[in-house]
Amino acid sequence: MGASQLHPFDTLTPGEIQLGAVILRKAFPGVALRFKRIDVLEPIKKDVVPYLEAERLGQPLPTKPARLLFSYFHRLDTLGFFKAVLNVETRRPVYIKELPKDVQGPADVDELIEIEEACMKHPSVLAEIEKMQLPAGYTVCNDPWIYGTDSATETRRLAQCYMYIIEVDHPQSNHYSLPCTFSPVFDQVTKELVRIDYLPTGKDAKTQPTQPWKPVKCVQYAHDLLDEPTRTDLKPYIVRQPEGPSFSAEGQEVSWQKWKFRVGFNNRDGLIIYNATFDGRQTFYRLSMSEMTVPYGDPRKPYHRKQAFDAGDVGFGITANQLALGCDCLGHIKYFDGYRCDSRGNPVLLKNVICMHEQDNGLQHKHSNYRNNEATVVRNRELVLQMICTVSNYEYVLAWIFDQAGNIEHEVRATGILSTMPIDNNGTTVPWGTIVGPGVMAAYHQHVFSVRIDPAIDGHNNTVFYEDSVPIPVDELNPYGMGYTTEKTIVKQAGFADLSVERNRTFKIRNDSKINPISLKPIAYKLHAAPSQMLLMSADSFARKRAAFSEHAVWVTRYKDDELYAAGEFTNQSRSDTGLSVWAARGDDTENTDIVLWHTFGLTHNPRPEDFPVMPAERISVMLKPDGFFTKNPALDVPASNQTFNRSTLHEESRASCCGPTANL
Amino acid sequence: MGASQLHPFDTLTPGEIQLGAVILRKAFPGVALRFKRIDVLEPIKKDVVPYLEAERLGQPLPTKPARLLFSYFHRLDTLGFFKAVLNVETRRPVYIKELPKDVQGPADVDELIEIEEACMKHPSVLAEIEKMQLPAGYTVCNDPWIYGTDSATETRRLAQCYMYIIEVDHPQSNHYSLPCTFSPVFDQVTKELVRIDYLPTGKDAKTQPTQPWKPVKCVQYAHDLLDEPTRTDLKPYIVRQPEGPSFSAEGQEVSWQKWKFRVGFNNRDGLIIYNATFDGRQTFYRLSMSEMTVPYGDPRKPYHRKQAFDAGDVGFGITANQLALGCDCLGHIKYFDGYRCDSRGNPVLLKNVICMHEQDNGLQHKHSNYRNNEATVVRNRELVLQMICTVSNYEYVLAWIFDQAGNIEHEVRATGILSTMPIDNNGTTVPWGTIVGPGVMAAYHQHVFSVRIDPAIDGHNNTVFYEDSVPIPVDELNPYGMGYTTEKTIVKQAGFADLSVERNRTFKIRNDSKINPISLKPIAYKLHAAPSQMLLMSADSFARKRAAFSEHAVWVTRYKDDELYAAGEFTNQSRSDTGLSVWAARGDDTENTDIVLWHTFGLTHNPRPEDFPVMPAERISVMLKPDGFFTKNPALDVPASNQTFNRSTLHEESRASCCGPTANL
Repeated sequence: MGASQLHPFDTLTPGEIQLGAVILRKAFPGVALRFKRIDVLEPIKKDVVPYLEAERLGQPLPTKPARLLFSYFHRLDTLGFFKAVLNVETRRPVYIKELPKDVQGPADVDELIEIEEACMKHPSVLAEIEKMQLPAGYTVCNDPWIYGTDSATETRRLAQCYMYIIEVDHPQSNHYSLPCTFSPVFDQVTKELVRIDYLPTGKDAKTQPTQPWKPVKCVQYAHDLLDEPTRTDLKPYIVRQPEGPSFSAEGQEVSWQKWKFRVGFNNRDGLIIYNATFDGRQTFYRLSMSEMTVPYGDPRKPYHRKQAFDAGDVGFGITANQLALGCDCLGHIKYFDGYRCDSRGNPVLLKNVICMHEQDNGLQHKHSNYRNNEATVVRNRELVLQMICTVSNYEYVLAWIFDQAGNIEHEVRATGILSTMPIDNNGTTVPWGTIVGPGVMAAYHQHVFSVRIDPAIDGHNNTVFYEDSVPIPVDELNPYGMGYTTEKTIVKQAGFADLSVERNRTFKIRNDSKINPISLKPIAYKLHAAPSQMLLMSADSFARKRAAFSEHAVWVTRYKDDELYAAGEFTNQSRSDTGLSVWAARGDDTENTDIVLWHTFGLTHNPRPEDFPVMPAERISVMLKPDGFFTKNPALDVPASNQTFNRSTLHEESRASCCGPTANL
Repeated sequence: MGASQLHPFDTLTPGEIQLGAVILRKAFPGVALRFKRIDVLEPIKKDVVPYLEAERLGQPLPTKPARLLFSYFHRLDTLGFFKAVLNVETRRPVYIKELPKDVQGPADVDELIEIEEACMKHPSVLAEIEKMQLPAGYTVCNDPWIYGTDSATETRRLAQCYMYIIEVDHPQSNHYSLPCTFSPVFDQVTKELVRIDYLPTGKDAKTQPTQPWKPVKCVQYAHDLLDEPTRTDLKPYIVRQPEGPSFSAEGQEVSWQKWKFRVGFNNRDGLIIYNATFDGRQTFYRLSMSEMTVPYGDPRKPYHRKQAFDAGDVGFGITANQLALGCDCLGHIKYFDGYRCDSRGNPVLLKNVICMHEQDNGLQHKHSNYRNNEATVVRNRELVLQMICTVSNYEYVLAWIFDQAGNIEHEVRATGILSTMPIDNNGTTVPWGTIVGPGVMAAYHQHVFSVRIDPAIDGHNNTVFYEDSVPIPVDELNPYGMGYTTEKTIVKQAGFADLSVERNRTFKIRNDSKINPISLKPIAYKLHAAPSQMLLMSADSFARKRAAFSEHAVWVTRYKDDELYAAGEFTNQSRSDTGLSVWAARGDDTENTDIVLWHTFGLTHNPRPEDFPVMPAERISVMLKPDGFFTKNPALDVPASNQTFNRSTLHEESRASCCGPTANL
């Protein structure tokens, strides 16, 4: 179908990928191109808003904004790196520009495979492997890693390959349990070996040449590689929705329990929520996880360069798992697909990269009149949209969860396998990491996320303010010292702010022109933030310079198209932040206008042995809650919870009740 | 059955209540007694531990510790207030002592009803009601409230009755929406009216005599009293366990997924977890919610006395809801009962006050090998033990949640109805509260909880320490400023400590004599705390003096029998803390000995209009997580998540897929 039939927030189609490649090849006749990305460019907000408003109000639809694509690609003759914006309707470029030499695009799937293969074939690498004198049946693999930054002059596109031993020919043998002590660095464009780094294995930074490997037991995670048998006492737990789900989906538009929104997907953000309305009222224009950085706390070379930007350096979209029924979700599941391009500009289907389902989350509200025990009970049904991203060793489960009371939760679960380092298996310990298996150490690290909240609280002109809870001075009105109140601070100009648990600081987004008739205050949503430690690296480290967003918990910017990613558009081997710190420094007016709220939160992850070989999910979440957006609890009209509806089962005792506490003495 | 057949942690039996009343009546021949409480006294730890160890190791069981009861009661002749400890086997008192005049016991159910009735019958109260000139059909009720404290000399047992208008003769008419402007104070022992307080209704503390009521709309919550129809688009969501649950229960002992523990219940704590072991290893001796205080931030008389201690002043056990299948839990449910005594010493059955069921909580762990997309996925099955307590207007859902990876979560949900005050319905606002309906204001308040954690990490000699994550100085080993490490502080003496989000401070409980063979550090559990604002009231307010536990997030004390409640044994009208601050001040050695960890956390609750008339549950939780207690992820042997086991349903599109993103351009 034509672009004109697509909704402005619809995901890239395979035809658009093909079209993008055709337009660009035509622009460079006779030149071989290597495509890194072809994807939809976000629609220009001022062009799409009238369309959305007409949709919301059921009015005749105006002309759609232009459907635009963008591409990152290399010329294979000059090796130059380019960005292009293309118009789907006119089938022409809007612009094509070559990017500066020090700008590196994100990793792509073909590139990772090429480097992995180049590394495994390189004679110098093979020579190092030889030195390990591995026992029969053991093989070696490598994970190409983002090179990070330790130089202001490096312009090569580099990959640091971390090498591991595979104990057994099994698709899930846990090579991260057996790290090698050498690490080749490759030029990703020329595929040349730059050098081989040797890894420290003791208490300090000393290294030595590759030694014969002293066999240690591999800590496996696949069920058929475990020593212990699988538990047999877990009984099935089945979710049934005999009348179907409470949601409906038309293309990418979802309706559920007064919520309506569009499910978006692109190669970088992965899952995006567009244009969420509740009972026909606007709440948020766009919600996304904009960036995450993971710096490691092992100060030794080459680990000092271990700092990944999982969205910017790779992309949540291209690493999103293709989900399987019954494995990744439970219940009645709807899936959404996506597409990416390969290096030749061909579309690749990303099947089932987003799942959607309902879940029950206990009680939403209850009150019992103690005089007569008459109770009103309403359960908390939720709608979950989820993707699971595998970034080499690690997994992130990223979910947006809607409830019936106007709340939206963004839940992050970190799981997968720790990034590991070799350590001498002789009682050696280090102060920046945990030994998680024989000869294997997992360094302390941080995961610092930036969630981007583009609000439209009953319209696009909004104001962010924060409210602290503070004591009222002891005076005539407060003689007993019991009084407390709130202090408001309005964020009038773009900038940042910190949380304060001590003051119960709460950030809110309000619409100054809409007064709640009950509370007599402007209608608002509030951010239930996740108070987190900010980046631990030194102020002049590249880690801090590249990820300025991780310095403060809250940022407010004035909306501008193209300002989507907290650390900037290009993070791979970046030397400084080109995102939030730059935009905030403009000091734009942010009162009663179109603004964006960014929340930085994260995990300081000092590994436990229990986090290996695959870590139990660490959960962290933030919430958006109505705060005077409604005049009363908007979930009052949810049907009461009762046995006719829920059909629970009463547990029958297997023994006579003579031993229970209800028996007589 | 006889006491000797009961397990030391078994709940009170009705026969024991009857026995307790008989023993006490015999001790006071000819004297009428009024019973406030008869309950089991916690077994003496040193006496019960050998029994538990023999049980755990399957050895012959030693003699059980003495089964003891305790009672609070009044003599009706002298009105003296007593505490007694009784021995069930010998059927004799261990001791009976009269308590000082200023000590008030907790509220009991009969007393609340008596005061409510006395208030509604009193001519002065009836005269005030008359002055309101209510329209036909409107009636009045009252909630007797804990009197709080504003005097160091008051020794009467007082109740502050807050009066409300009932709009309609319906068991769930929301009287909290229509508060009256007068509030009688009664002596709870003599049932005499002490005085009538008049409530401020404007911006300041001024009051006026009772006026004719100006009718306003009542904000109702019961489904059949709502103006709006009930939603019809919520589809059933049914949980089935065709092979039964994964748990088994024998009396109060529960086994589930390597966990074994006993479910306890008493009138004050409600739900208690005793002697939790994982795979036969001890983890925690006793887990409970020990106290909660709720002070209100409206400084005006008489609200300055609004500070409830919901456990100590009333009791989570006696306020626990009798749960109904299909309403309060979903799935396959096992219930536990309890008992309380009435004022005459008769047993009253508390049916179904605790529920237990399994729930699915998304992914526990996943890793996908990106080379071949082979994945290991394990879901997070949890076992939930829950009670729901109604303390007049408010509801607390208190749950202990076990998972398969050795984690224990304590989740609190606050719901129910805000405590309300009258406010002039003319645009008046106040800086310490939110208008939540016509003529009704809900004051800012705090809920500050103290969870009591009595650890037994592979034995009873444990040590608490905290670990901060801090940068390594930039030096030769850390030239790039990337390194960070942890700083440990051992709590060597009883005392308190604060959290620090900035330093990612983490409290851990370790066993110094057991070294983890992988990490080479002592085995430990850690507390995943809930960073919260502490009490906002002024330092010399009664609120702070009575609830010293709410000054600091973490307290460590040396174990002593009878030290169970953070603010002390008697909190009702207390003038000062007799709990944690007193015990911590002893400065006992707390290293490598039997210690207790207490965590203070809470909610600063500045109400939203959305929190009325019944508030969507506000969730807060803390977790106990193994931290080097195991040598690897203890959930590896949980069966993989797959469609054969989970039987999920694929959503079928209702429309042709021509509009989806997978169609060709």
